[in-house]
Amino acid sequence: MFENKGRTELNQLGEFGLIKHLTKDIKIHHHSTVKGVGDDAAVIDLGDAYQLISTDMLVEGSHFDLMYTPLKHLGYKAVVANVSDITAMNGKATHIVVSIAMSSKFSLEAIEELYIGLMAACEAYQIDLVGGDTTSISKGLVVNITVFGQVSKSKIAYRNGVKEGDLLVVSGDLGAAYLGLHILEREKRIYLEKPDFQPDLEGNDYIIQRQLKPEARIDIVALLEQLDIQPTAMIDISDGLASEMHHLSDASQVGFTLYEDKLPIDPIAYQRAIDFGLDPTVAMLNGGEDYELLFTISQTDYEKIKGTMEISIIGHAVAMQEGIHMISKSNIKHKLSAQGWKSF
Amino acid sequence: MFENKGRTELNQLGEFGLIKHLTKDIKIHHHSTVKGVGDDAAVIDLGDAYQLISTDMLVEGSHFDLMYTPLKHLGYKAVVANVSDITAMNGKATHIVVSIAMSSKFSLEAIEELYIGLMAACEAYQIDLVGGDTTSISKGLVVNITVFGQVSKSKIAYRNGVKEGDLLVVSGDLGAAYLGLHILEREKRIYLEKPDFQPDLEGNDYIIQRQLKPEARIDIVALLEQLDIQPTAMIDISDGLASEMHHLSDASQVGFTLYEDKLPIDPIAYQRAIDFGLDPTVAMLNGGEDYELLFTISQTDYEKIKGTMEISIIGHAVAMQEGIHMISKSNIKHKLSAQGWKSF
Repeated sequence: MFENKGRTELNQLGEFGLIKHLTKDIKIHHHSTVKGVGDDAAVIDLGDAYQLISTDMLVEGSHFDLMYTPLKHLGYKAVVANVSDITAMNGKATHIVVSIAMSSKFSLEAIEELYIGLMAACEAYQIDLVGGDTTSISKGLVVNITVFGQVSKSKIAYRNGVKEGDLLVVSGDLGAAYLGLHILEREKRIYLEKPDFQPDLEGNDYIIQRQLKPEARIDIVALLEQLDIQPTAMIDISDGLASEMHHLSDASQVGFTLYEDKLPIDPIAYQRAIDFGLDPTVAMLNGGEDYELLFTISQTDYEKIKGTMEISIIGHAVAMQEGIHMISKSNIKHKLSAQGWKSF
Repeated sequence: MFENKGRTELNQLGEFGLIKHLTKDIKIHHHSTVKGVGDDAAVIDLGDAYQLISTDMLVEGSHFDLMYTPLKHLGYKAVVANVSDITAMNGKATHIVVSIAMSSKFSLEAIEELYIGLMAACEAYQIDLVGGDTTSISKGLVVNITVFGQVSKSKIAYRNGVKEGDLLVVSGDLGAAYLGLHILEREKRIYLEKPDFQPDLEGNDYIIQRQLKPEARIDIVALLEQLDIQPTAMIDISDGLASEMHHLSDASQVGFTLYEDKLPIDPIAYQRAIDFGLDPTVAMLNGGEDYELLFTISQTDYEKIKGTMEISIIGHAVAMQEGIHMISKSNIKHKLSAQGWKSF
């Protein structure tokens, strides 16, 4: 009974294009709304501080595969992905609400496992689970989390604050979560062919953990505060370094020059990329779900940060018209495309 | 690869039992958390006022049928259902975030319709849509909304404040949304048998609107303020009057006596119940989705409220051990069971 006027397929726009299209006509009614759609989190003025809000929906088949994702880990990771969005605003997550839709294939014991993971993450990040909704769905599992947090007004980091000349910095290492996913997918294929086989995950603990049980870098926010560094912009790496650089570029109207030899990778992740016949640099640029922080700082803060473990200076911001490039190890300049994760 | 230790089916607990079971071990880390799971909304202390947070997931096939639900109406109703939860705390909704998972059967134009409905409700209720997530799912449509709002500390109404002797009051009329659903289901069955038939919805505008485009009773919150009445407890009627009375009873440790002849019903809804061979009283007690407010007030406020249009005094609170009963039109006392909507 509902009519269809013309038909444009969703995958013609991609995830980010779709969001931009749908939200272009939003009207704001409240003075307290500082930032709506378009950053890692929405920003509401509470008077003394800013409140940060973000929401994230995980769908079985699109975002996770229960063949190799224990429900406990799924619950933990769902919280981490949300906490990471608050962290990316230089803030601290405080509360979540959780909605779960599940089919009758899930038993109470299975959902308890999911909750154990949710609560373990709440404990690890000192977050209060204050509400939720549970409902049925004909097929699969859907988990939606909305996270709330706070940040002091002088500390907030948006995507749009990058200035030409700022240093581009990343925490931890890149690409490991993506390579962990490759290992799990390989073991799944073998298992489906030979159900009596034992998965061979030896020596891959770190990269599998990066995929199944990532952490949000709240320690980096604390470190920046301790070093008295205010990032000029920040974003978390959920879709891949290249994609996040494009988000910073779009929001701040700057370009970037990135140095391949500065990109941080774990040695095992490097080796597994080679084993799989993948370019380790591609894994670092396009592999998502590392939940590391990508941020920019003023060059005047260089002395404060140089030599700090846990972070790498990987490039710098340039004029918008110069675009986004990577200088390769062999000193060749490559234009860098977004390659953002396409959900559709 | 994940193991199953025993199996309890989800439908053994029911929706409310499941939530109670899963959330019983939640630990609270923040002093600002005034109320977590267990009321219409979570309550966070912002210093000057309380923030209210609620979340709601709507799943195609479980909560709506796109055969007779225009996507525009679905978007509108999704916002209203959430606003109603904030209203039920005597508060005012201010912001929402929206997550949508949709299969490839949906075109961009279809999702635009959904957004038109979301934004129309945001306009009607002066709410800012400040964030969201859009993603793919193999089948169907899932919409999750998290709403937040505020209430002054002296005005908040929980479920647990009912005192013996308080008057039980309901806004508007009951059962119409449920009867509207019956009409739509009937027309769907006829349509599936004879696809060239024209649906006959004449004379049923009000009850169909109650199902497809309900409103949240923000006017009642304003009215109570104007009359200088502080409700001792409040809840919205999403699952049915009987179910909500049991929630108030559980939270406040009181019983209720309800008078059948005081229950408000729209004349057309009454007639349609008779046409369908349903007891109109059962439709009022068990039919959900009216989104009216059910609240209790002190008897000393009776003079302020009597004669007010738009509300009906339908009973009063009694001692817990007296239980929940309805005095029928023929003056017989019936024990009232919950009959809450079972999602599983």
